Amino acid sequence: MKFEIKGRDAAGRICKFTTKHGTVTTPNLMPVINPNKILISPKEMKKIFGTEMVITNSYIINKHKEYKEKVLKIGVHRLIDFDGPIMTDSGTFQSYVYGDIDIDPIEIVKFQRDIGSDVGTVLDVFGKPDQTKKEAEHGIKETIKRSKKSASEKDDMLLACTVQGSIYLDLRVKCAKELSKIDADFYPIGGVVPLMENQRYSDLVGCIISSKRGLDPSKPVHLFGAGHPLIFPLAVALGCDFFDSSAYAKYANDRRMIFPWGTERLDDLNELPCCCPVCTKFTASELKKLEKSDLILQLAKHNLYISFAEIKKIRSAISEGNLWELVERRANSNPFLLDALKELRNTENKIWLEKFEPISKNKALFYTGDHTIHRPIIYRTHKRLLNRYEQLFDTTVIFPEGNKPYSTYYSPYVKEILKKKNVNLLVHSHLGPVPFELDEMYPFAQSVFPKNIDKETDEESRKIIDEFLLGRKIILWKDSRTSLETDVSEERKIDMDLRRISAVTDMQFGNGASKALFNGKIKIVKSKKTGKIRNIYCDRNHILSMRASDGMFTLKIGGACFLHDFFKYPKLRVVIREVAVPFIKEGKSVFAKFVEDCDSALIPLDECLIVNEKDNLLAVGRCLLNKSEMLSFNYGLAVKTREIKKRS
Amino acid sequence: MKFEIKGRDAAGRICKFTTKHGTVTTPNLMPVINPNKILISPKEMKKIFGTEMVITNSYIINKHKEYKEKVLKIGVHRLIDFDGPIMTDSGTFQSYVYGDIDIDPIEIVKFQRDIGSDVGTVLDVFGKPDQTKKEAEHGIKETIKRSKKSASEKDDMLLACTVQGSIYLDLRVKCAKELSKIDADFYPIGGVVPLMENQRYSDLVGCIISSKRGLDPSKPVHLFGAGHPLIFPLAVALGCDFFDSSAYAKYANDRRMIFPWGTERLDDLNELPCCCPVCTKFTASELKKLEKSDLILQLAKHNLYISFAEIKKIRSAISEGNLWELVERRANSNPFLLDALKELRNTENKIWLEKFEPISKNKALFYTGDHTIHRPIIYRTHKRLLNRYEQLFDTTVIFPEGNKPYSTYYSPYVKEILKKKNVNLLVHSHLGPVPFELDEMYPFAQSVFPKNIDKETDEESRKIIDEFLLGRKIILWKDSRTSLETDVSEERKIDMDLRRISAVTDMQFGNGASKALFNGKIKIVKSKKTGKIRNIYCDRNHILSMRASDGMFTLKIGGACFLHDFFKYPKLRVVIREVAVPFIKEGKSVFAKFVEDCDSALIPLDECLIVNEKDNLLAVGRCLLNKSEMLSFNYGLAVKTREIKKRS
Repeated sequence: MKFEIKGRDAAGRICKFTTKHGTVTTPNLMPVINPNKILISPKEMKKIFGTEMVITNSYIINKHKEYKEKVLKIGVHRLIDFDGPIMTDSGTFQSYVYGDIDIDPIEIVKFQRDIGSDVGTVLDVFGKPDQTKKEAEHGIKETIKRSKKSASEKDDMLLACTVQGSIYLDLRVKCAKELSKIDADFYPIGGVVPLMENQRYSDLVGCIISSKRGLDPSKPVHLFGAGHPLIFPLAVALGCDFFDSSAYAKYANDRRMIFPWGTERLDDLNELPCCCPVCTKFTASELKKLEKSDLILQLAKHNLYISFAEIKKIRSAISEGNLWELVERRANSNPFLLDALKELRNTENKIWLEKFEPISKNKALFYTGDHTIHRPIIYRTHKRLLNRYEQLFDTTVIFPEGNKPYSTYYSPYVKEILKKKNVNLLVHSHLGPVPFELDEMYPFAQSVFPKNIDKETDEESRKIIDEFLLGRKIILWKDSRTSLETDVSEERKIDMDLRRISAVTDMQFGNGASKALFNGKIKIVKSKKTGKIRNIYCDRNHILSMRASDGMFTLKIGGACFLHDFFKYPKLRVVIREVAVPFIKEGKSVFAKFVEDCDSALIPLDECLIVNEKDNLLAVGRCLLNKSEMLSFNYGLAVKTREIKKRS
Repeated sequence: MKFEIKGRDAAGRICKFTTKHGTVTTPNLMPVINPNKILISPKEMKKIFGTEMVITNSYIINKHKEYKEKVLKIGVHRLIDFDGPIMTDSGTFQSYVYGDIDIDPIEIVKFQRDIGSDVGTVLDVFGKPDQTKKEAEHGIKETIKRSKKSASEKDDMLLACTVQGSIYLDLRVKCAKELSKIDADFYPIGGVVPLMENQRYSDLVGCIISSKRGLDPSKPVHLFGAGHPLIFPLAVALGCDFFDSSAYAKYANDRRMIFPWGTERLDDLNELPCCCPVCTKFTASELKKLEKSDLILQLAKHNLYISFAEIKKIRSAISEGNLWELVERRANSNPFLLDALKELRNTENKIWLEKFEPISKNKALFYTGDHTIHRPIIYRTHKRLLNRYEQLFDTTVIFPEGNKPYSTYYSPYVKEILKKKNVNLLVHSHLGPVPFELDEMYPFAQSVFPKNIDKETDEESRKIIDEFLLGRKIILWKDSRTSLETDVSEERKIDMDLRRISAVTDMQFGNGASKALFNGKIKIVKSKKTGKIRNIYCDRNHILSMRASDGMFTLKIGGACFLHDFFKYPKLRVVIREVAVPFIKEGKSVFAKFVEDCDSALIPLDECLIVNEKDNLLAVGRCLLNKSEMLSFNYGLAVKTREIKKRS
């Protein structure tokens, strides 16, 4: 099994998942193929929808005498005529729907192995939401026992061990942790269908997050039974990689059409609110008049077009760095999803989510409503403002929201103010306090909010501003006549550039970083075209470059040396195993499997110091993973090396 | 010209618009056909996208020597090879882009007429947003003058007179009023392209509403130059019927793809987040590799697929009664649109919008965010609660949000409470106060809100509750032990059914309606299956039926007689011209052209009394139009007659 991260946003990720029948890009959707009733063949699905992987039910095949004999001879790939990866389910869901089923849990795993399934599933114990905690505890015990036994029978089949635990979040974590110790390859989150059927999305969020907390982050996670695109964006943002859909066929049989915002009965529609090939070929009334089997086929196709388009939309959002925007937009179309999103406001969940959230994004942050202010990246920004911003003077002048960047917009007044007094300059923005020194840094400059803000955001940003300014003297700026007591008799020259680079380095690398970096003769080189800071030298040594895209620093090896001297181990470090050191010294990037240890505060896209086991600085680079990922992934890059340290 | 309303929601409408070249369903989109550069022929558009009407530019044709000669011989339909309705533009936009153009305003109208245009456009004066008021005033004067002159030249061509006035809302109203006096057939709202280009959607909303206020409501309204689906839902909700798109081609030329939530550069996309036939046929990288002209064609097709799907989505939302949900969802994806939506919160706009808002909808009201509480239908509900609810006792017991219907959910406690004391029972819901008597009435029962509400909605609903309970004694219900002073020594029987039917009739028909209707021996017949109130008799006379769908009353002729006696003219009346009386007496429905007068408080789907000019009651029916529409439309139904009054 090979599984590696290729892109990321929120706690979501684009990965390559490799099986003996080929490689699949995740997040992805596996349509359910019912061998008794193939509506659209997997081959056709591949051609029409780009389907890469399907799921079928080994229990149903096993119970069907003819199929059972046949599949043992020809294998599951020929049985359903598909040469891509096939996952098989084990009958757990049948046991939930129909009660006890007569199959031995280990036999069904062996059967899956014998028929050549790429990913076979343990016959786990379905944890219903209405179970008592005792029942749920008993269930996960049995699930773990069966999973262990199954692992010893898997051979070259990849094994899916399902996390259960009903709605008891501690049991979910516990089950996930235990299963992560087993030699498994794939982790479904199970027992969630009844939650989705009853739109209990808040509970669903709890189940996903607690399962993810306990799971090995280097394995794919599958939200078992989730086939409606409505919850795909949120589930992906919380770290789910796979979905399976029987919904496309089930809804089609019921004359219902799936849409990203919900489900509609064909018979309620006068017009088809969709641009898929089915909905552009037929009008609503033409569709309604189709012969039954053709109608079901067309509706199933529509449902799959929509479902796969949503998957592409999600992957596209991850690439563009606006997955949260998509999640929030979708939630705005369903009140229960909005409730679920509120679960992410609790601090514990924010802290967990923040560990996955890249340091900045390709695209501006867009406001969608009162959830935006609670995004993990804004939580991080506020935390850093409160803890890392050190340029505080006695007095702060507060400006109202204005055009961005604020320091340019307000520049005529700033000059006047700073002549009189050395003060902090701050914008009371919808995002919270924005010191002028940070006004080009993501997300302050790269965010789009409406002029009129909702009350939640307004209160939240006020709260942070109050905390930020606690005990300081405040002057509210009204116009150019805002009066300031004169600080000194003669005019003074404040070096705003130095203040800016100091504030940004502290925010980005931690308290004290500016002291460590700017401890010598500083030369700031600006872009001739834009006038913006580009490169910084300390005693002729190139230490930093500022990125135009997000107003943050790229660390040069010169700067890395200063930070390495100043910050104690393990801060900012990624520690490389001895065996990989020669490669790093050649400038190669760092593969996850060679990472020995890592600063737990490093987050994706952070600048980092690459060191050997004796903490000698080897190079500087940019993290692609966080600590837990670096230590668990066996494939893919952990750090992109930028510059190596020359021998001194 | 024939234009009639077939369906409606918000201030939006589904209409049939008839020209000499056929009938078009609105809202609709007219792709712009540039005769110099036909990317996709109108014929093909009709086949692929179901395009019903196109727009082309008579100024460009006129300036092109070869085309000019040809079109005068064969007509515009043969020139661009399209047998459906064609609108022609006049060169106004060219004058905005290139400055003065050398064509006589009347000549170009005659030219349009002579080439057989179905809808020809006056060469009006483009009102730029940065004009002074004086300039704008001068502009509309000239526009009105040219429109008047043009009208005398139109013959059988339908004439489009464009509303201008820059961003001066009083000038928009004035211009619209003046143009409505002219013999015109079609009203574009002009001068808005620069607003849309700069995402000044708040200003756009002002321009649309003020133009609509001044315009004859029986004519189609076209948002000139609006081709991006992002603003279609809001524009339709404010009463626009037509859009035109050159965007599909312009964006395609620029390698940009249109989506309902905005625009994306093809080169930024790794995956195509769409299910249209183009995006399901090609992957992003395949598309990028296409030969230039083919790429432009494919992108143009994608853009039209998306644009027409949005039109279908809007029409579908009107049919289902959830256009506001669509508008709000779209706005959530663009902060400037969110700002625009806030414009609708001002009371003047709420009052205007409420006149078009049907009394109830087919589908439940869905919360999408903090805009929902400001919808016109909730504004109306609050207004009626404050003015029409008369069942107030000294003491009110307030229950928290619960399952719906509330009276069933809280029934065990209600019985106990009412034994002790005659009080009001009220739920403090997210929607505001809900008296138990009204808990089955739209939108109280037919609405879906999240459990955790945003701060704006919370404050707004508290405000209404405070106003509703002003000066009353309040008891907050906590549990079954909530203490109530005993009112009377013995047990009492409160007739909750009578309270319910009284409260609903007052809310629906106005103060005093319950007194008028229930002035005799009342018999309430309930459904055996659901236990809900179905029919009401007064002295054996069937007066009302309650609709299960919205918990409101259908008025029977018996009840209509009582209300006719009780309420003075013109309350609840639709007055029919003498010539139509015989048809009404036969039970035929009322066509708009036969309406002489009407109660201005009647709104779409209201129950109404159909009377003759002497105010004799003829029948009872259900309004399809509001007063201003009834008095201006020449086609279509105004009232659906339900029951006629038998001769007494």
